[in-house]
Amino acid sequence: MFNILYSIGIFSVFHYLRGDINRVSMIRFDSDYIEGAHPAIIEVLAKSNFEQHAGYGCDEYCARARDIIRSHCKDESLGVEFLVGGTQANVTVIDAFLRSYQGVISADSGHINVHETGAPEATGHKVIALPSSDGRLSLEQIAECYHNHWNDHSHEHTVQPGMVYLSCPAENGLIYSKAELTAISEFCHANGLYLFLDGARLGYGLMSEDCDFTLSDLARLCDVFYIGGTKVGALFGEAVVFKEKEMHRSFRYAIKQHGGMLAKGRLLGIQFEQLLTGGEDCLYFRLARHANRLANRIRTAFEKKGIPMWIPSRTNMQFPVLTKEQQEILMKKYVSEFWCKYDGERDVVRFCTSWATCEENVDQLCKDIEELL
Amino acid sequence: MFNILYSIGIFSVFHYLRGDINRVSMIRFDSDYIEGAHPAIIEVLAKSNFEQHAGYGCDEYCARARDIIRSHCKDESLGVEFLVGGTQANVTVIDAFLRSYQGVISADSGHINVHETGAPEATGHKVIALPSSDGRLSLEQIAECYHNHWNDHSHEHTVQPGMVYLSCPAENGLIYSKAELTAISEFCHANGLYLFLDGARLGYGLMSEDCDFTLSDLARLCDVFYIGGTKVGALFGEAVVFKEKEMHRSFRYAIKQHGGMLAKGRLLGIQFEQLLTGGEDCLYFRLARHANRLANRIRTAFEKKGIPMWIPSRTNMQFPVLTKEQQEILMKKYVSEFWCKYDGERDVVRFCTSWATCEENVDQLCKDIEELL
Amino acid sequence: MFNILYSIGIFSVFHYLRGDINRVSMIRFDSDYIEGAHPAIIEVLAKSNFEQHAGYGCDEYCARARDIIRSHCKDESLGVEFLVGGTQANVTVIDAFLRSYQGVISADSGHINVHETGAPEATGHKVIALPSSDGRLSLEQIAECYHNHWNDHSHEHTVQPGMVYLSCPAENGLIYSKAELTAISEFCHANGLYLFLDGARLGYGLMSEDCDFTLSDLARLCDVFYIGGTKVGALFGEAVVFKEKEMHRSFRYAIKQHGGMLAKGRLLGIQFEQLLTGGEDCLYFRLARHANRLANRIRTAFEKKGIPMWIPSRTNMQFPVLTKEQQEILMKKYVSEFWCKYDGERDVVRFCTSWATCEENVDQLCKDIEELL
Amino acid sequence: MFNILYSIGIFSVFHYLRGDINRVSMIRFDSDYIEGAHPAIIEVLAKSNFEQHAGYGCDEYCARARDIIRSHCKDESLGVEFLVGGTQANVTVIDAFLRSYQGVISADSGHINVHETGAPEATGHKVIALPSSDGRLSLEQIAECYHNHWNDHSHEHTVQPGMVYLSCPAENGLIYSKAELTAISEFCHANGLYLFLDGARLGYGLMSEDCDFTLSDLARLCDVFYIGGTKVGALFGEAVVFKEKEMHRSFRYAIKQHGGMLAKGRLLGIQFEQLLTGGEDCLYFRLARHANRLANRIRTAFEKKGIPMWIPSRTNMQFPVLTKEQQEILMKKYVSEFWCKYDGERDVVRFCTSWATCEENVDQLCKDIEELL
Repeated sequence: MFNILYSIGIFSVFHYLRGDINRVSMIRFDSDYIEGAHPAIIEVLAKSNFEQHAGYGCDEYCARARDIIRSHCKDESLGVEFLVGGTQANVTVIDAFLRSYQGVISADSGHINVHETGAPEATGHKVIALPSSDGRLSLEQIAECYHNHWNDHSHEHTVQPGMVYLSCPAENGLIYSKAELTAISEFCHANGLYLFLDGARLGYGLMSEDCDFTLSDLARLCDVFYIGGTKVGALFGEAVVFKEKEMHRSFRYAIKQHGGMLAKGRLLGIQFEQLLTGGEDCLYFRLARHANRLANRIRTAFEKKGIPMWIPSRTNMQFPVLTKEQQEILMKKYVSEFWCKYDGERDVVRFCTSWATCEENVDQLCKDIEELL
Repeated sequence: MFNILYSIGIFSVFHYLRGDINRVSMIRFDSDYIEGAHPAIIEVLAKSNFEQHAGYGCDEYCARARDIIRSHCKDESLGVEFLVGGTQANVTVIDAFLRSYQGVISADSGHINVHETGAPEATGHKVIALPSSDGRLSLEQIAECYHNHWNDHSHEHTVQPGMVYLSCPAENGLIYSKAELTAISEFCHANGLYLFLDGARLGYGLMSEDCDFTLSDLARLCDVFYIGGTKVGALFGEAVVFKEKEMHRSFRYAIKQHGGMLAKGRLLGIQFEQLLTGGEDCLYFRLARHANRLANRIRTAFEKKGIPMWIPSRTNMQFPVLTKEQQEILMKKYVSEFWCKYDGERDVVRFCTSWATCEENVDQLCKDIEELL
Repeated sequence: MFNILYSIGIFSVFHYLRGDINRVSMIRFDSDYIEGAHPAIIEVLAKSNFEQHAGYGCDEYCARARDIIRSHCKDESLGVEFLVGGTQANVTVIDAFLRSYQGVISADSGHINVHETGAPEATGHKVIALPSSDGRLSLEQIAECYHNHWNDHSHEHTVQPGMVYLSCPAENGLIYSKAELTAISEFCHANGLYLFLDGARLGYGLMSEDCDFTLSDLARLCDVFYIGGTKVGALFGEAVVFKEKEMHRSFRYAIKQHGGMLAKGRLLGIQFEQLLTGGEDCLYFRLARHANRLANRIRTAFEKKGIPMWIPSRTNMQFPVLTKEQQEILMKKYVSEFWCKYDGERDVVRFCTSWATCEENVDQLCKDIEELL
Repeated sequence: MFNILYSIGIFSVFHYLRGDINRVSMIRFDSDYIEGAHPAIIEVLAKSNFEQHAGYGCDEYCARARDIIRSHCKDESLGVEFLVGGTQANVTVIDAFLRSYQGVISADSGHINVHETGAPEATGHKVIALPSSDGRLSLEQIAECYHNHWNDHSHEHTVQPGMVYLSCPAENGLIYSKAELTAISEFCHANGLYLFLDGARLGYGLMSEDCDFTLSDLARLCDVFYIGGTKVGALFGEAVVFKEKEMHRSFRYAIKQHGGMLAKGRLLGIQFEQLLTGGEDCLYFRLARHANRLANRIRTAFEKKGIPMWIPSRTNMQFPVLTKEQQEILMKKYVSEFWCKYDGERDVVRFCTSWATCEENVDQLCKDIEELL
């Protein structure tokens, strides 16, 4: 891990931070947002602290970060706005794009449906939840939902589908293929639906070995998506990217109305400039690759041991199916997250790496997995 | 850079930052949130960066910050939650406390009525705006509004007043007296109205020479108020303090529902711990006194020159009434904010100091005021 | 002016009613609200037409209707308000009773979840939809949902259950037993949940041979329920009955805010006075018994023929499982409603009687069922 | 079943109407919706009672009523939907047409701003209230509000104007001229604002001697307006007319979502068919002319007596400025409505006629005015 850190030239920064890390006796794999931000970000936040800037995202950092994102997306006409968190981004997008009588199609396991305290509904929009065994929506499901709506003679008595919401990676680490995204995008645009992709963990998805799409593909296929910073190296921040030039004029109203316009907006610009500068080799991608590589090591360790994986994730979250005994042993040293029951005797458990996960901790975990019963 | 971080003596911090300030050729008095945060905050953010913490404000920093605030307020039973920004705090409070058919009484110049893109209305609550010449509401106005409502035989056809919203300091720097707050509080509580005080600039109010109330008074008189960090030394953050034990159980739902629950909540805890540790001599108060003292110097300079002040503010915002010529001269060197027209020839202009304002810049401004025509 | 009134010849108003009925060549069993209102209602509407009354439900008809309902419910302290339609009643109740961060537990087939164009969500409240094979919720489901919520350590990230919504009869004609309602009521009240019963077809439920509860039981067990008029003899109208004295003061605000306060409110009072006067032998009950009796005749005819019923409904809606051939034959003469597929060859079809269904038409239908293949 | 129907003796329904009127000892001029509906409407409601019709406004009565309205408006492409009440119509239109971050410009005395319990805000939209001395908005005001918004560099922090709401007649009986409406319409359409005209009392406006516009003009100038039935001869009902073909597809969703879709929609179609059949001599216009003529008689009586009128209304509401003594004398026999204070000694009082006002009562009132001190 610290190879990366040192390669950026942040030398003195972490020197004294190691003590803090070691202070915690348990090794945590329970989440990808338990640490702060990559030191390169902290450094620029500190360095720029006394600069005087216009508020609300109208500063030069934000301007540059917008341009960097447009460059990644190969589209100068894109709108880009920065928000603090994912729920905020989700509801702002949903409420800004949809008409009052429209709802958003989502997998039933989608974050907007289960973990946002009804935030979309609080803006008046129903989540049209479709069953999903793996956290993803298929074109068939979307099409069936859409056609069922319009074929229903009493369709005016049900919520009009106005948007499709995809999570990529989904809650369980799976991503879509470019072909799947293309097919869904074409269906949406042929039928007047907006396509919105929640990219709270987008970095881990883009850098997955399974991934065959790029930011530029997303910018082309989606009407709006966001590049998640909070879980991939930033203190906080989600960069919302949207196609509609017209919406740009008004999207900032929606941000303010939903309480999401950060007074010192440059804090967001600074972070995304740091994360995304450097094209294919930008910090954001390097951090995501780091996390994915460590996650793959963990998965391989489980598989070698003959422990089945619940889902074939190739991103930073891995879901082994563990017996109670195996869980007990690992839980003495590691913090992971119970995900769901698998069968009478075994549970699905989530192990999560992040940009901040230490190689040494993964070494230890893999060794301990090897020694499991 | 990181030398600074090691020395908590704030002296050296500004020293090396002067370069940044001077880089900007204009001297800015247009706002109190153009810089970042006090260096003591930046330092702890950096130092704690690799600590691993529970998210969403359930970490130890937040726990300690809550206790410090309860101690300032001399009430262990208070609820305290941390939000990122003021609009977010306002709508979360309004929507959490009010019933769907209730509205909030505010001065027509109140932030919730004019500068939040209708955020309270977006949660369903009408702002019952009362005319105010000085940004404040009087007990008489509130009582009249309340009684007019209930005396109206068709009161069910109008929004039921459910809350009184006060800004302190108000948009123009004025504060309430303890007697005024007490009278309003008694009226509210005798009549089933919540009293909510917007303290986005509370530090400057509390440290004003005019101020005869304390945090502990506010905690006693208000049902809910907040201690603004964004404009008084923090990168961002507002600490919402509320009396109702019962609401505490549910206020966090409201935060999440309004997209205001910061994943890495410790960022807020860290800042408020830094700002408020130390009782009467805490950083928050010291920074506010600094800004008020400089604002008073500016006011005195104008008054000595015979230039009238629009409003008798004793906080960090001063409002001289300037001729076009005077404005032109000052605008060559200083950025201030046009506030409103005063008469055919003169305008009200806002000069704003902050925790980050340099004494030297005020020296210069005072000198230039002295030399005005 | 009155020349106009008399020139129309109001005399022979009713005598061609029978002709109109016969004019329609198809015999309709597709819905229980295709006709107007019971003639007794029309008569009083006409008779009272030139009376001058206070608006908005503050007239004497409404006052008397409220008292009659309180008398049926054996509780003088109940609040009673009259609304025009069911969706209006549902959202007004949900929004008036719930706090902003609360949702309402409903069967996934519940009217609020599927046939109100997201009206509850438009007021900000998520419908927490639980799977239901027969349109009803069990105590076990409700308790599991409730406990899952509060046992979840991140429960603040999900909608707080605040109310249980039951339909009785449900969309498929089934009702609850008094024991079931009592158990659910006790659970709700032990756990701070409101119990709300949607009685759009309540008359048919109360007069069902299966029914062992009364209006007075409902008034005791529910916090709020309504007595549906639209589908049981009225032109329109739902009488919302609620326990909370406190809510009464404010429920009318919620009505007005949701656009549900009828200017000429006496129209509602007149209808409910007509329907409910007469205790156990009131028109409302007589009309419901009429519809149920005819529905039972239809069911018996199907059963005699060996045609299975999808669900053991004892109210005005019957759901035979019919082959395509059987459907084709019946559809030549009768309008019924396709409900859902049963298996590859058969569908569930709804036959609906109402207060206005003619005995002769049921005679004919039963005969035709008998002659089915 | 039909035994019941015939046992009631529906025969002599109408012949005691006159007696009911005389039963009330006071003569009421306090409102235009204290009676039921014009008998022609009651008759058809009764006559059609047993017809079987599709629900939700999809019946033949509604279809014919839509065509009659399109014919009045000389535009076959118009959308027409029927709602039960004015507040419902207002919020459905506002919420259907506006984007979430937009507000509606209204006179501060506008019904949506003062008498709808915050219904527009409950759908998320702020009412941008402009001061109005006579209940109307001028082009200058609208333009100033619009330009102030877009010229404000922080316009994203305020609600974006999306619609102009006019009441015609306004709350005090005044109407707009065709030239005024045309100018406002042109401004709106040049600047992307919808023009919405609240016509709750439209009949009285159209038939005013001052009126120089027609339904066809309104249909051309407004994006959406409604023809009020409740106050001009119907039991209830407002016919919303809108230009946008595209909106038509979705406006019905908005109706349902706001609880405004009447199950037995034909009740609305029947009423508007009765009111508007007959072109320039339709019942709606005749009833309005009747009310206006009687209101003019009342005004003339006051003016002859030297009593000043508060406002030059030429519709069905008249506002004499009366001394306390004059009020006391008239209040012994007549019910009128206190409107507002005029000066220390005199009040503005509203006298309201309607389609149902008797000539004899106006004779008496005029005589009593003549005999006033």
